[in-house]
Amino acid sequence: MALVVQKYGGSSVESAERIRRVAERIVETKKAGNKVVVVASAMGDTTDDLLDLAEQVCPAPPQRELDMLLTSGERISNALLAMAISSFGMEARSFTGSQAGIITTSRHGDSRIIDVTPGRLQEALEDDSIVIVAGFQGVSQESKDVTTLGRGGSDTTAVALAAALEADVCEIYSDVDGIYTADPRIAADAQKLDKISFEEMLEMAAVGSKILNLRSVEFARRYHVPLRVRSSYTNNPGTLVAGSMEDIPVEDAVLTGVAHDASEAKITIVGIPDRPGFAGRIFRIVADAEINIDMVLQNVSKSEGRTDITFTCPLAAGPKAVELLTKAKEDLEIEKVLYDDSVGKVSLVGAGMKSHPGVTAKFCEALSEAGINIELISTSEIRISVLCRESELEDAVRALHTAFELGGDEEAVVHAGTGR
Amino acid sequence: MALVVQKYGGSSVESAERIRRVAERIVETKKAGNKVVVVASAMGDTTDDLLDLAEQVCPAPPQRELDMLLTSGERISNALLAMAISSFGMEARSFTGSQAGIITTSRHGDSRIIDVTPGRLQEALEDDSIVIVAGFQGVSQESKDVTTLGRGGSDTTAVALAAALEADVCEIYSDVDGIYTADPRIAADAQKLDKISFEEMLEMAAVGSKILNLRSVEFARRYHVPLRVRSSYTNNPGTLVAGSMEDIPVEDAVLTGVAHDASEAKITIVGIPDRPGFAGRIFRIVADAEINIDMVLQNVSKSEGRTDITFTCPLAAGPKAVELLTKAKEDLEIEKVLYDDSVGKVSLVGAGMKSHPGVTAKFCEALSEAGINIELISTSEIRISVLCRESELEDAVRALHTAFELGGDEEAVVHAGTGR
Repeated sequence: MALVVQKYGGSSVESAERIRRVAERIVETKKAGNKVVVVASAMGDTTDDLLDLAEQVCPAPPQRELDMLLTSGERISNALLAMAISSFGMEARSFTGSQAGIITTSRHGDSRIIDVTPGRLQEALEDDSIVIVAGFQGVSQESKDVTTLGRGGSDTTAVALAAALEADVCEIYSDVDGIYTADPRIAADAQKLDKISFEEMLEMAAVGSKILNLRSVEFARRYHVPLRVRSSYTNNPGTLVAGSMEDIPVEDAVLTGVAHDASEAKITIVGIPDRPGFAGRIFRIVADAEINIDMVLQNVSKSEGRTDITFTCPLAAGPKAVELLTKAKEDLEIEKVLYDDSVGKVSLVGAGMKSHPGVTAKFCEALSEAGINIELISTSEIRISVLCRESELEDAVRALHTAFELGGDEEAVVHAGTGR
Repeated sequence: MALVVQKYGGSSVESAERIRRVAERIVETKKAGNKVVVVASAMGDTTDDLLDLAEQVCPAPPQRELDMLLTSGERISNALLAMAISSFGMEARSFTGSQAGIITTSRHGDSRIIDVTPGRLQEALEDDSIVIVAGFQGVSQESKDVTTLGRGGSDTTAVALAAALEADVCEIYSDVDGIYTADPRIAADAQKLDKISFEEMLEMAAVGSKILNLRSVEFARRYHVPLRVRSSYTNNPGTLVAGSMEDIPVEDAVLTGVAHDASEAKITIVGIPDRPGFAGRIFRIVADAEINIDMVLQNVSKSEGRTDITFTCPLAAGPKAVELLTKAKEDLEIEKVLYDDSVGKVSLVGAGMKSHPGVTAKFCEALSEAGINIELISTSEIRISVLCRESELEDAVRALHTAFELGGDEEAVVHAGTGR
């Protein structure tokens, strides 16, 4: 008897009708002889509706209370899911994150799971019950307050439970039926991958693939939890995320896909004294504001003894970073701070990159032929990323997807909506 | 420094704007030098909306999951209330029933509070924080599952907390500004009472006054928690419910008011053998179905050796009672079972009844003069209740209110909507 953890995103449970369809799928999995643990997100727009209400009563709501508010969303969807399952004649019990033993840090709104004590879930499984766990939430070890895990938190809940319960597989259901060689809405001939290694998936998630949350992939890799990305609208097997890149024979290593991301901004600091310590002071200012830096470029400026530094950070944090750096202008002897929020990042990922020489050259040629200018470039062992104009981003995806012959004949299955 | 427990019903927190107004009142109470614990119900129609959803996914939802679902309503309103308070510059922390230590029996949907362990609330109060507790909910001592307290449960939560924390007063806010001598929507000259004893309030609640839940009054009486019934729309002091009837000097004892109730049905069992044991068997059938019986009348039937029994029960349980009794017809040698759902009950309550002879006579005369026929009569030491046609119920209230000179000159303040 296998133990299967299934995670359903917000769009999969957005209405009573969708909840009943998900319940049917869960019941089928149980009837096939599996033990089943389900993690579900809040229904469709619930989170946005609750945030709207919060804004109406308080311009800057305390994070502790926001967590109390938002976690009611999963409580609703999960109780409804348990009811729907019971209407198909099977027993299901829903549990809050706290009841499920999801122990976290105290950082409200963006907590980390530090322990999972699933005693109550194990009891319910032994009673032959289907177990439903509210995703995205936990309880602080220190204060015993309700916490949330931040964006993509339900994926992390599912993977953490799969690890703690030693599940055979963790299935992540959403509105796409797997991991594709590129976004099928951009590259019409994008192919679904049957399998991808954890390392490749991590790189894909880090550079813009929205299908799996980065933190949950890291968790799955660390605890060897095989993930299966599937659509709740079809019965396709989806994409299996499992195994290490190291285990792929060199001759089988391929290029995985093209990812893109338009959620970064570019900041250029012009004319910094080219002396030790200045770059460090700049990045310290940004880091102290808890702003993550992605790509970085330093080059010598035309004016003597001075250098320029360009970096990218999340679009939402851009104005804050500019404000802080502009404040420090005199102190750091900076000439000026430039801000550009119209950039896009396109990346090629794949274990095959290690064994195939000339990938970088071909990458740059393909973009050049498409008339796309490269503004910044960064690489890892299995990834090349470049920054270009946001308006050229989709062209860049298509150019690279075609140049590296990643396309196929099968039509991609895509549904609207996203989960959290 | 006094400790004040305030309870706000669903209509008091039905919108963001109402929540902010309630928050202002709470902040004022805190600023006046009190420690404040607040119990709030779910926002306006939340409970009904959630029940609608439940019905869409499952025709007969399991009660455990219904409790999980419905308790999210208080979680939302309470978190919003805490946020609104913080926007006025004061600290507030919201707690679920479980976090607040409301320990209950396991009977989902209608649990009883068996213990209150408010350690976390006391800590928060010591930190000078305002404490917000989700009403209507608790946690089962046995299974650790989320439970609900049934109708009027938020009142019970407030009173139980006031008792456990040894509060100086428990203020119950709703859309009426106190206890009236009759429903002001029926008797336009109804007067607000400044004070009423627990016994009188119990009788009023038992015979149809909807302002305070019966169970919460019993709780308050047992633990000597003074209640103050107030409107969240005004600053009137409302009505104080406190003290024992025994402590009222005979010369000060008055008639409290007229209550009415149209939520009962009348069942008549015609032609039961007039032998010992038959009445008991009838009431056992009804009791085993957990149907509460209110008024009872037994009289000798025209047919020899046979008797009739008439009783009233909640309207909602009427059809079930008729079904069970009809099934037992042959077994109990019953001739027939009659059902009447168009009855109303009108009651006069007051400690003054004990010391004023002739109240019953005057009561019957007043109804007779108004042309109202009495179908059943039942009395306690401080109450007379009669059953009449439902269509004559409002006339009966006015006739009694006038006959016993309960009216005043002040205009009653009434707002639409009810809480739970």
